[in-house]
Amino acid sequence: MMVVEMTESSSRRDLDRVCESLARGGRSFRITPGRGRSFVMSSDIARREDSSDYRALPGVRSVNVTTCCHPLASREIGGEARPMELVPGLRIGDGEPLVMAGPCAVENREQLMTTAIGVGRAGAHVLRGGAFKPRSHPYAFQGLGSEGIALLKEARASSGLPVVTEVMSPEEAEWVAPHIDILQVGARNMQNFALLRTLGGIDRPVLLKRGMCATVEEWLQAAEYILAGGNERVILCERGIRSFDKNTRNTLDLSVIPLLKSMTHLPVVVDPSHATGRRDLVAPMSLAALAAGADGLVVEVHCAPEEALCDGPQSLTLDDFAHLMTRASKVLRALREEEPSWRMPIAR
Amino acid sequence: MMVVEMTESSSRRDLDRVCESLARGGRSFRITPGRGRSFVMSSDIARREDSSDYRALPGVRSVNVTTCCHPLASREIGGEARPMELVPGLRIGDGEPLVMAGPCAVENREQLMTTAIGVGRAGAHVLRGGAFKPRSHPYAFQGLGSEGIALLKEARASSGLPVVTEVMSPEEAEWVAPHIDILQVGARNMQNFALLRTLGGIDRPVLLKRGMCATVEEWLQAAEYILAGGNERVILCERGIRSFDKNTRNTLDLSVIPLLKSMTHLPVVVDPSHATGRRDLVAPMSLAALAAGADGLVVEVHCAPEEALCDGPQSLTLDDFAHLMTRASKVLRALREEEPSWRMPIAR
Amino acid sequence: MMVVEMTESSSRRDLDRVCESLARGGRSFRITPGRGRSFVMSSDIARREDSSDYRALPGVRSVNVTTCCHPLASREIGGEARPMELVPGLRIGDGEPLVMAGPCAVENREQLMTTAIGVGRAGAHVLRGGAFKPRSHPYAFQGLGSEGIALLKEARASSGLPVVTEVMSPEEAEWVAPHIDILQVGARNMQNFALLRTLGGIDRPVLLKRGMCATVEEWLQAAEYILAGGNERVILCERGIRSFDKNTRNTLDLSVIPLLKSMTHLPVVVDPSHATGRRDLVAPMSLAALAAGADGLVVEVHCAPEEALCDGPQSLTLDDFAHLMTRASKVLRALREEEPSWRMPIAR
Amino acid sequence: MMVVEMTESSSRRDLDRVCESLARGGRSFRITPGRGRSFVMSSDIARREDSSDYRALPGVRSVNVTTCCHPLASREIGGEARPMELVPGLRIGDGEPLVMAGPCAVENREQLMTTAIGVGRAGAHVLRGGAFKPRSHPYAFQGLGSEGIALLKEARASSGLPVVTEVMSPEEAEWVAPHIDILQVGARNMQNFALLRTLGGIDRPVLLKRGMCATVEEWLQAAEYILAGGNERVILCERGIRSFDKNTRNTLDLSVIPLLKSMTHLPVVVDPSHATGRRDLVAPMSLAALAAGADGLVVEVHCAPEEALCDGPQSLTLDDFAHLMTRASKVLRALREEEPSWRMPIAR
Repeated sequence: MMVVEMTESSSRRDLDRVCESLARGGRSFRITPGRGRSFVMSSDIARREDSSDYRALPGVRSVNVTTCCHPLASREIGGEARPMELVPGLRIGDGEPLVMAGPCAVENREQLMTTAIGVGRAGAHVLRGGAFKPRSHPYAFQGLGSEGIALLKEARASSGLPVVTEVMSPEEAEWVAPHIDILQVGARNMQNFALLRTLGGIDRPVLLKRGMCATVEEWLQAAEYILAGGNERVILCERGIRSFDKNTRNTLDLSVIPLLKSMTHLPVVVDPSHATGRRDLVAPMSLAALAAGADGLVVEVHCAPEEALCDGPQSLTLDDFAHLMTRASKVLRALREEEPSWRMPIAR
Repeated sequence: MMVVEMTESSSRRDLDRVCESLARGGRSFRITPGRGRSFVMSSDIARREDSSDYRALPGVRSVNVTTCCHPLASREIGGEARPMELVPGLRIGDGEPLVMAGPCAVENREQLMTTAIGVGRAGAHVLRGGAFKPRSHPYAFQGLGSEGIALLKEARASSGLPVVTEVMSPEEAEWVAPHIDILQVGARNMQNFALLRTLGGIDRPVLLKRGMCATVEEWLQAAEYILAGGNERVILCERGIRSFDKNTRNTLDLSVIPLLKSMTHLPVVVDPSHATGRRDLVAPMSLAALAAGADGLVVEVHCAPEEALCDGPQSLTLDDFAHLMTRASKVLRALREEEPSWRMPIAR
Repeated sequence: MMVVEMTESSSRRDLDRVCESLARGGRSFRITPGRGRSFVMSSDIARREDSSDYRALPGVRSVNVTTCCHPLASREIGGEARPMELVPGLRIGDGEPLVMAGPCAVENREQLMTTAIGVGRAGAHVLRGGAFKPRSHPYAFQGLGSEGIALLKEARASSGLPVVTEVMSPEEAEWVAPHIDILQVGARNMQNFALLRTLGGIDRPVLLKRGMCATVEEWLQAAEYILAGGNERVILCERGIRSFDKNTRNTLDLSVIPLLKSMTHLPVVVDPSHATGRRDLVAPMSLAALAAGADGLVVEVHCAPEEALCDGPQSLTLDDFAHLMTRASKVLRALREEEPSWRMPIAR
Repeated sequence: MMVVEMTESSSRRDLDRVCESLARGGRSFRITPGRGRSFVMSSDIARREDSSDYRALPGVRSVNVTTCCHPLASREIGGEARPMELVPGLRIGDGEPLVMAGPCAVENREQLMTTAIGVGRAGAHVLRGGAFKPRSHPYAFQGLGSEGIALLKEARASSGLPVVTEVMSPEEAEWVAPHIDILQVGARNMQNFALLRTLGGIDRPVLLKRGMCATVEEWLQAAEYILAGGNERVILCERGIRSFDKNTRNTLDLSVIPLLKSMTHLPVVVDPSHATGRRDLVAPMSLAALAAGADGLVVEVHCAPEEALCDGPQSLTLDDFAHLMTRASKVLRALREEEPSWRMPIAR
């Protein structure tokens, strides 16, 4: 693949000239807009020598030839890891782990408000909660839908925490985006390419969960769909892969954390709740994820797990969560070999 | 789960009465329309004793309480296997295996027409070909789109074969349905519930591929989404699961054929091309699938595999395919212990 | 790896000269005796040019340089598939599938004799039965041991069928070999290298089951351990691999049949009983295995499965087995496109 | 299963009486000797009421009926976790992680001595090194054998560290035991029951690696084979399971650490080297394992990894290892929320 990066000051005409040149050479290509950076990607196999023809064109910053199938997601083309702003004042990937916490599903006002206030007090930075739930069979509780979105907005106002929620189709993404701070793609939709393309055109960070049996390359290629649409804010979320052992709901693959760090600049967070499916394993796996270098956690917390409509057995209580945050803070301090600077949650 | 089946002569009022009764009992429920059959499904746990209250209501044919999460797809509730009409005059599940064949992707008129005529002559019953291609990365050939759909219609006219093609989003499904005979859901979208729900409301048979790491129950629950929408024509397609061995593209799990026969009334077909990824393994695995009792095959055939834009290494040539059809016919004759009656392709 | 094959008429002195030459070149090597064929294998990386030095030495038939890690098991070095004699008059790999049948475990005289006579009458060629049972926990029935071996000899005398039984350690192999016709290595011991080495020196065919999560290459390398010891009679047995789906005991990977045929000259048989763990799936999977080109089957049959001490739910009754043999015969006849010549069991 | 535990002061006659009573009841049973504790295990299904008959017999401490297939390894029967003495003065499971480090294979005196001294200085407690190597194909370097054992003894003398090495067959175990402090069972031999039984009778701690596709239950049942023989010192070692993703050699399943802590009293250690196969992932995964509660680590360290005969790419240098030990110490201190007390390696 050949990747032509344009300079920031390049004109529309410069871009056209690159495209014409590719077209004359019989190449197919794709223009990738970006905030600040823009690229022309051509997947036809390029001889290294001919890339110099493009380098000389006006407005071209660089031309790279790569065998990588996810160039924008790679460190090779996409550059080094850098902090990513999620909402004004809140960044991920700056060395301070970011914690998203909340119930699996939004069930009712009281449940959501109590949990939101509770996780915020314990130090969470983002409130999570599902309004549209992907359920294996059609007769299970499918979420509160638009009513759930409204409750999430209310909870944001009360707690001061930005919110993340799952979207499952292009329409849902378009509809939900104006109301919600971060959009989540679930494991089942990691290769829902129509959804990924839509998210590429939406100005919201995307929490992209790994598919149940996705390789790391497939995951990064899914991220590439979003990046190629011009949305540069993709957060990768490991949530366990499917294996033969059924003692845990999935098998948490923590080795992807340092592995991804060597491959991509995108931040990596871990969801120990879906990965294990067992409350008693969530805290040890959270600490392990941080020790392995994760940029953050996504943790299911419920004000009354035994009454949860969904995934109660893997939800922490508010007390469990507060205790986990305290322990996590100590581990992080040790890892940094310096004074604690566990990020303060944004103002509420 | 409690499943209330209404009689064919039941009125709208009868249905309302059942629903009111459920609502009064504090139960949530879902009405499942059907051509001829209609159901009210309530997933709240029911004590067996209280099902008799519903049995007495007018218009109720039967009330079943089941622990099965895919009742309409099950033999227990959904009934025994029965032939399913795909287009007028062409049925699957009637004892005669049905063969869908054609290229991975529609590439151009000549490729498609040559292949369509060839597979038809060799005895295929349905032409397959992808217009919208799900590709792991955004820079790969994504299919001809609407132009591909137009070519498929032309190929249907020339060859006399009905056509099947993949759809990847609700909009694509709505848009493609009027033009195409059978709609395919690919492995990556098996749990794209928005897509499944849309297909539940479309009057077209659906070829539902198994997800790469889907259990049999998850697969049947995905089918249930379509059935619950009132579309009774779902064909299950085994296409290999992901395992640790990389000698084949996937691991073809043929034991699901007799397993599914014991669980569901839905027909089961096998795609040996995607399962193995190797042309030399397609014929033996096709014969094996038929010997195991498959209701049909989905085989990639290309008039010039070495020039294919997609999946050439796993595509049969037209000659390979004709030879396979001859051998398959012999095996089937033996299995039936009677004279050959390999289904004649519908008129062209 | 460099493989030097000696001629049959080569002398001990010729062999020594090859070895000295390798030693002078600083290479490590291993001499592989064979009945008729003998080899010197050197795993140090060889430049192709220097292999000619060895070609000129007296007694050398050929010198091959290969990247294959299982040269004797490969078609490249080991040659084409050929019939293998198991006992005088009984061959595998000659186009006629060979069927091994019998109980999971030898339980008592009556059970074994009844089953042996029954499977022989139905057309089985070899009697299988476990005397030493590998059991996951130490308190389960571990087999009758030496008493079981005595019963197997008795059953051989009564039924006229040669017998196959599992051995689990080098001592067991040494002790059992004089009494039993074919020695089986179970899935759990596929990489028990001490056992494999011992079997390399024993003049008995070895039925080598695939490990639960062994790749095809690892399986062939396990076979190579036996072949490298001079025992050329290894039969590969596919018995299902471990996957995420628990509806069947294991996942039967039938695509290895044509895959192995392209890689090795060794015969390949299939055990549908352990693969599926369900009686109702054994017959369809047996027919599928034969349709895919298997050289034979290993089927659990019990005169009274409901009383079996081990694996009753996956054992066929004698009637089931006889019915399967009839159907198998028809499929095979069709595949061969000629008159039936289902092998006659050897005289009894 | 019924588990009868005898008191320490019980006589041989008491034991005989229990056994006679079981035999009269038609039950099969197995006597499990122990240092201090002894058990009679009967796997026949027991009605709870009849266990009281045994409770009254002289010398009987307790009678338990359990559905667990690994009672001695369970917390239910086997009791709570407790420190285990490996050699005089060195314990595992006392809250201080224990680190075993050294080369994959013993290659020569210099390599072993340099590495042994180095890892000891950095704080390792046990020296690891393979003398008998399980290799996938027979032509790979198989270890120095008895010469390797002699070098390990020499390294122990020089470094003051006890040594652990792998054994692969009953004979090897018997032969090696007098010379070596801790015996290792590799992943490939986790269900080599002849080997496990032999180790049950040897007075040496056993490091039992998890099989590549072993469930947690199968692993504990393998441990049970050793415990049932009277050897109470089994250490469980997670070393990665096989999955579909090939970016890492195996998939490290750290969630088994807290899971096992809830099931068994046996200590659990982690081998991040074999799990990942990549040097750059070893340190983060080591820290993660400790944060998850592991009782120790097994780390491959080589004085010159680029020259290693085996597994060089996953071996740490001595400097890497020293750095890891420093970081690990900090994480542990934080987790204990108290002053550091990183165990001092035993005197050298």
